[in-house]
Amino acid sequence: MTSPLRLGLAGLGTVGSATLSLLREHAETLTLRAGRPLVVTAVSARGRVKARAVSVEGLAWEDNPLDLPKRPDVDVVVELIGGASGVAPALAEATFAAGKDLVTANKALLAAKGAELAHRAEDAGRRLMFEAAVGGGIPLIKTLRESLAGNHVRSVQGILNGTCNYILTRMEAENLSFGVALEGAQAKGYAEADPTADIEGHDTAHKLSLLAALAFGTAPNLADVTIEGIQRVTPVDFLYAARLGYRIKLLGVAHLTDEGLEQRVGPCLVPLESPLARVDDVLNAAQIEGDAVGALTLIGRGAGGRPTASAVLADLVDLARGTTVLPFGVRVRDLRSLPSSPPDKRVGEWYMRLHVKDQPGVVAEVSAILRDEAISIESLLQHGRSETREVPVIITTHAVDEASLRRASRRIGQLSVVREEPFCLKIERPEDGA
Amino acid sequence: MTSPLRLGLAGLGTVGSATLSLLREHAETLTLRAGRPLVVTAVSARGRVKARAVSVEGLAWEDNPLDLPKRPDVDVVVELIGGASGVAPALAEATFAAGKDLVTANKALLAAKGAELAHRAEDAGRRLMFEAAVGGGIPLIKTLRESLAGNHVRSVQGILNGTCNYILTRMEAENLSFGVALEGAQAKGYAEADPTADIEGHDTAHKLSLLAALAFGTAPNLADVTIEGIQRVTPVDFLYAARLGYRIKLLGVAHLTDEGLEQRVGPCLVPLESPLARVDDVLNAAQIEGDAVGALTLIGRGAGGRPTASAVLADLVDLARGTTVLPFGVRVRDLRSLPSSPPDKRVGEWYMRLHVKDQPGVVAEVSAILRDEAISIESLLQHGRSETREVPVIITTHAVDEASLRRASRRIGQLSVVREEPFCLKIERPEDGA
Repeated sequence: MTSPLRLGLAGLGTVGSATLSLLREHAETLTLRAGRPLVVTAVSARGRVKARAVSVEGLAWEDNPLDLPKRPDVDVVVELIGGASGVAPALAEATFAAGKDLVTANKALLAAKGAELAHRAEDAGRRLMFEAAVGGGIPLIKTLRESLAGNHVRSVQGILNGTCNYILTRMEAENLSFGVALEGAQAKGYAEADPTADIEGHDTAHKLSLLAALAFGTAPNLADVTIEGIQRVTPVDFLYAARLGYRIKLLGVAHLTDEGLEQRVGPCLVPLESPLARVDDVLNAAQIEGDAVGALTLIGRGAGGRPTASAVLADLVDLARGTTVLPFGVRVRDLRSLPSSPPDKRVGEWYMRLHVKDQPGVVAEVSAILRDEAISIESLLQHGRSETREVPVIITTHAVDEASLRRASRRIGQLSVVREEPFCLKIERPEDGA
Repeated sequence: MTSPLRLGLAGLGTVGSATLSLLREHAETLTLRAGRPLVVTAVSARGRVKARAVSVEGLAWEDNPLDLPKRPDVDVVVELIGGASGVAPALAEATFAAGKDLVTANKALLAAKGAELAHRAEDAGRRLMFEAAVGGGIPLIKTLRESLAGNHVRSVQGILNGTCNYILTRMEAENLSFGVALEGAQAKGYAEADPTADIEGHDTAHKLSLLAALAFGTAPNLADVTIEGIQRVTPVDFLYAARLGYRIKLLGVAHLTDEGLEQRVGPCLVPLESPLARVDDVLNAAQIEGDAVGALTLIGRGAGGRPTASAVLADLVDLARGTTVLPFGVRVRDLRSLPSSPPDKRVGEWYMRLHVKDQPGVVAEVSAILRDEAISIESLLQHGRSETREVPVIITTHAVDEASLRRASRRIGQLSVVREEPFCLKIERPEDGA
């Protein structure tokens, strides 16, 4: 076990460069911990002559990343290119076809083709490792796959997108509109020029589908994730949420009930006493509820070069030690097929924000619709009066099925005294009180 | 790999019973995850006929736990007896002597003899696993040993004793004295009849020494841990701490500096914005600061049957899969020898509570001593006046070396206007601001 583990590194962006740097900085301790040296032998990235944060001198260069797995001096391909289509899936297939192991941070690819790739890895007798795909340096994958092996997991709730968490944190702290907060995030480099994947919730959905697969022993099923972004959240929502004892976070939530698996991404009200409520700025976190462990919360840096590289290195050390586990914890053929829970079986409390004409009788009309749908009002706030303008009305409900809530919301939106369909946020309480 | 992993279970207390129950409840998923069945074949506990929470029918019984490793139908001994002396160390030795693996929750034993036992395991080519020894179901051991393998860890801060955390939480919430809160904890079953090991900080010190060993690649060194209990904390401390923006927690802190390794256990002031500040009641938590990952916080149930059994099962599944790592992450001969940092090199901010006679000039006398020791005052609070009695004076300092702080504290305690030596609490900020 003293022969080096030889790595072919595809992608030299933020994470790739940090991975290369850390491998060099920590070469000595990594060798002790892995039982043998971890050595990058070859790299591939766009633009060979680009100035990089880290030197590639002395490393073999492949213009085409698909040539990395073919190299006899590469045992493991580290894919840090990203994307569900294009070169990344081809590289994954080429890696297993060549009988090599794959370490990747590519959540989009795994959300789309996780089970298929795990199957290829199994057939090839190789490993597919992806700790870096979710939560940056937070060991969510290993915790679900290994540390909670003695549990039946009931739910996972996560703040899995640092961009959205930063935007929501700034909106609340500085009373900013979504647009202004987004611009601030872009100026700071926390949001991309095209922020769609982040703010519309797709990135969170990719990650959630991986966590749910590990938590519930099923294949990633992105198509079953209900996805809502943070664009409709307004400063007034933070105001009322705070008054009611909540903060607003974009959560990915996966929840196993007798009715099936519920997977949702959307802005939620989180009670102040929840550990997730205080996770601010670009931090990520997840709370996992297992039947043995109770509630377990992990908080840390969910993105960035070095935190994500920390996760890549954890996978590499496991590979070097020979202590890796199957990608989804069990063989692909042992993954369960779980039905998606139907909306009329999804029960929860909701927050509803309406903009209504400031005139008598509005609350009566709204209340009548809620009564018709058997929705019980927990609180109703209508602060501030305006002679000429609309005022917000904030309603929180007791537990209600989501189908009724949505029906009521549509009907309320059709009232002449209401400007538009209400904005609804689910209230997500920690399962355990912990 | 389809032959069962056969377990000999020593100890059927809270954790042992929960382990046996979970192995039965989750037999099917455990077999899928482990790749083979986990089967208890033999047990040993005090009092064969005692009524137990779980049935032992059909299991072989050994009156002497030392006979468990000798059984040919036992591959792994699960030691849930506890204690640094007596049967537990003998059982560990007997297990490795018989060429079997050991899973244990015994922090006292590992803190005292961790490196020695790891060495015996290595010599025997067997494994020593102890996830359950620290933080109950929180995967602190695996995170430090595996997930952070690509990091140089700088510090670990932990709330590692649920009994103390419960007592401190109740003292603050209900303005209780230490004695009354302790009685309440005993009534609830959160504190033992003899609470010494918990409240004096020894249990936290055992756990800290294990976390420090894993974090810094050294052998557990309990003798180098500075230990202070929570008995001297009073309601007035919570009051002033809150006013200053802190909460009081019993922390185990290990910190690697150029001067060496600092390991301390003691009640500390934790800033409200720290993730540890909100960890209440019997919950445990740790914040680990790594040079790649940044700050990583894990929060969960640190004790109790099922959470601790969750950790035992994680170790057992790793053993069944054959994916275990060396007990301290590297071979015993590769463990570093780290000097303990001398007190005059330990720099920190402190909180100091004095009880002084309510007369003019007292602050001048105290300030003069602090000036003499080159200690800079960050704040000084002397609220409330009393004609006849003593009043508390609260001082917080800027960064100062601990030796100077202690000298000043002794001198202040000798002033005629001061009742007793000041009560000093270190202010522990998260390293990362995260």
